[in-house]
Amino acid sequence: MGLVVQKYGGSSVADAEGIKRVAKRIVDAKKSGHQVVVVVSAMGDTTDELIDLAQQVSPIPAGREFDMLLTAGERISMALLAMAIKNLGHEAQSFTGSQAGVITDSVHNKARIIDVTPGRIQTAIDEGNIAIVAGFQGVSQDKKDITTLGRGGSDTTAVALAAALNAEVCEIYTDVDGVFTADPRVVKKARKIDWISFEDMLELASSGSKVLLHRCVEYARRYNIPIHVRSSFSGLKGTWVSSEPQGDQPMEQAIISGVAHDTSEAKVTVVGVPDKPGEAATIFRAIADAQINIDMVVQNVSAASTGLTDISFTLPKTDGRKALEALEKTKGAVGYESLRYDDQIAKISLVGAGMKTNPGVTASFFEALSNAGVNIELISTSEIRISVVTRADDVNEAVRAVHTAFGLDSESDEAVVYGGTGR
Amino acid sequence: MGLVVQKYGGSSVADAEGIKRVAKRIVDAKKSGHQVVVVVSAMGDTTDELIDLAQQVSPIPAGREFDMLLTAGERISMALLAMAIKNLGHEAQSFTGSQAGVITDSVHNKARIIDVTPGRIQTAIDEGNIAIVAGFQGVSQDKKDITTLGRGGSDTTAVALAAALNAEVCEIYTDVDGVFTADPRVVKKARKIDWISFEDMLELASSGSKVLLHRCVEYARRYNIPIHVRSSFSGLKGTWVSSEPQGDQPMEQAIISGVAHDTSEAKVTVVGVPDKPGEAATIFRAIADAQINIDMVVQNVSAASTGLTDISFTLPKTDGRKALEALEKTKGAVGYESLRYDDQIAKISLVGAGMKTNPGVTASFFEALSNAGVNIELISTSEIRISVVTRADDVNEAVRAVHTAFGLDSESDEAVVYGGTGR
Repeated sequence: MGLVVQKYGGSSVADAEGIKRVAKRIVDAKKSGHQVVVVVSAMGDTTDELIDLAQQVSPIPAGREFDMLLTAGERISMALLAMAIKNLGHEAQSFTGSQAGVITDSVHNKARIIDVTPGRIQTAIDEGNIAIVAGFQGVSQDKKDITTLGRGGSDTTAVALAAALNAEVCEIYTDVDGVFTADPRVVKKARKIDWISFEDMLELASSGSKVLLHRCVEYARRYNIPIHVRSSFSGLKGTWVSSEPQGDQPMEQAIISGVAHDTSEAKVTVVGVPDKPGEAATIFRAIADAQINIDMVVQNVSAASTGLTDISFTLPKTDGRKALEALEKTKGAVGYESLRYDDQIAKISLVGAGMKTNPGVTASFFEALSNAGVNIELISTSEIRISVVTRADDVNEAVRAVHTAFGLDSESDEAVVYGGTGR
Repeated sequence: MGLVVQKYGGSSVADAEGIKRVAKRIVDAKKSGHQVVVVVSAMGDTTDELIDLAQQVSPIPAGREFDMLLTAGERISMALLAMAIKNLGHEAQSFTGSQAGVITDSVHNKARIIDVTPGRIQTAIDEGNIAIVAGFQGVSQDKKDITTLGRGGSDTTAVALAAALNAEVCEIYTDVDGVFTADPRVVKKARKIDWISFEDMLELASSGSKVLLHRCVEYARRYNIPIHVRSSFSGLKGTWVSSEPQGDQPMEQAIISGVAHDTSEAKVTVVGVPDKPGEAATIFRAIADAQINIDMVVQNVSAASTGLTDISFTLPKTDGRKALEALEKTKGAVGYESLRYDDQIAKISLVGAGMKTNPGVTASFFEALSNAGVNIELISTSEIRISVVTRADDVNEAVRAVHTAFGLDSESDEAVVYGGTGR
């Protein structure tokens, strides 16, 4: 048997009991004959407490020092986890991101991984140790400063190490049983997905599913590392994310993977844009220069009478003010009439392979929403996804209607197990 | 003006307010024209909390992992301190022991410094930064593992950096105003010492004075780094420890530096040892093999009638059981009669240069104890120290009597300020 990389999130190691429980699970994997490398996040609320401390001493903490501070969190959890494993009679050594060879760029607080040189990890596991690695952190290539990877950083650390160590699988342990066909808090009959392709998982992640972040899935796809998302609280099999169905997973793939929703976005409409070349470019260059990532973009056909059109796009609510300020500055150059801002929207997305070649899918999607009395404000499609924007108030009803219409509802009437301990 | 190394202990940076207060003091030193390197300990009770966590997951935490865990404490305090300084408009960068080039041996939990290669610190201060360095930690030369320096480690880090960076002075900030002629909690009229030689300070430290540890003073003496021990809570001048009196300190040195006491030791007596060559060697080889440091050793003249003698020695109470076990094993080889163990003792020491050449000193010392009704159980002397062992119950009275007898009492009737905030 080969090498397994396991990643445990902060809720799995929230206290001494959690750490001991996780240690047992790691030792089980080792006993079953695998080499084991573990990536661990900071305990429970540690990171929030450190952020709070930072804000007490400085309203705008410096990036380099902020990263130095935050990385103390994983240092604590990884050392404790190694101790707990040794207490079970197995050899374990903990390593910081820097010691594990996680080389990044120098963008503090959201560094990108440039390279992984896990020589010390390889040596440790070759000598029979379980290696425990701090998630979320690395060391910058040029200045040798400590960096953090930003949101989803620990998952990305795990996948990156799995790739560099040529692991069989990267197991992401979390507080839910896997990836579901919809958010189980919204759709009681949501089913756990046994297997999903990288492509569908990427679309789910960028459509609001929070189990795995886009960045981590993208990394796994590039290096073809199978991910197994599962609960650290139960012994259940979770969801495999890979290029091909794994082991005893069903080989036939359902067309539709799931329904995702996202209420974190806002909609900006630029009203009365002259319909001539270069206007859209000016608008979106201004947005890009403000470092804002936009999601959906829709331009209506212009009214023949006026030669004016409206351009709408969605973006994270947190960037709303910045976007409006950037657009105000282009008003002279573009000559639009006005700006509208709406943060009471939701995005509902249906994700599945082969959607384009099954024209019925789009029609069924719209019919389901229509039957539920949900009005559609924007539409955007890709090869394997349809997304619509609706009123935020309609989101739960819309998700349930689509989930049922596409036969995703669980046959059992029992509530889906969402997390193993209710946390 | 040159380079100053400042060291702040955990009580000085116990919370955000403490960190901001210390940041102001550091900035003042920088504004006065010095290059400033700061060594900082973990915040308040952080280390104790981490130890508690470790014991929850493992009764005997592994050394390597324990060091990894503990060093998270300084990582937090140093990053916060750097942020607080930047918030005051000055440039600051924090560095781990490893980044600061503190190279140690591989003895986890009590590593010794082998070398200091502070290239990154030198660069940082040459570029105008205040450098904040984690105390108490280093990196092992052979395995590149994180190590901690054990008791007094942060003070030693500060002195070692001061030596490597050729600093003018190493300022040790603490919660007392300096080194006193006796423990102010015992002797209300104890005086702050303005200047004390390395040698006298070494004797005070090894006789129970807790302000500076022996190890740190020894390092400072070897590299001739003046230490200034002072309060981080007041603006007062503290105590200079150096080879020669500093600046405006009085040049004439009092013969007697101070009175120290120590109640952390126990006394072992090996009764009825045959008075022939090699017996003492066998006994103390056994103690040394058990890794126990002994302090005072006294052998009585043997009784002519029996040819037997008694050998007594003192050692840390915490090593008592281990010593008795080691001695039990030598009983056959030595042929002694019995062992006695007594942990209700105190050691009182008078420290000062020129003691040997002032015979009156010893006599006055014994007279003072006698007048106070204190019985002497063991006596040991060095060039600059006389120590006696008494009953633990007598310690306070004995210290006060000696302090008064040697004219050390403060002329003022006011209580000595002990710490700036009463903590």
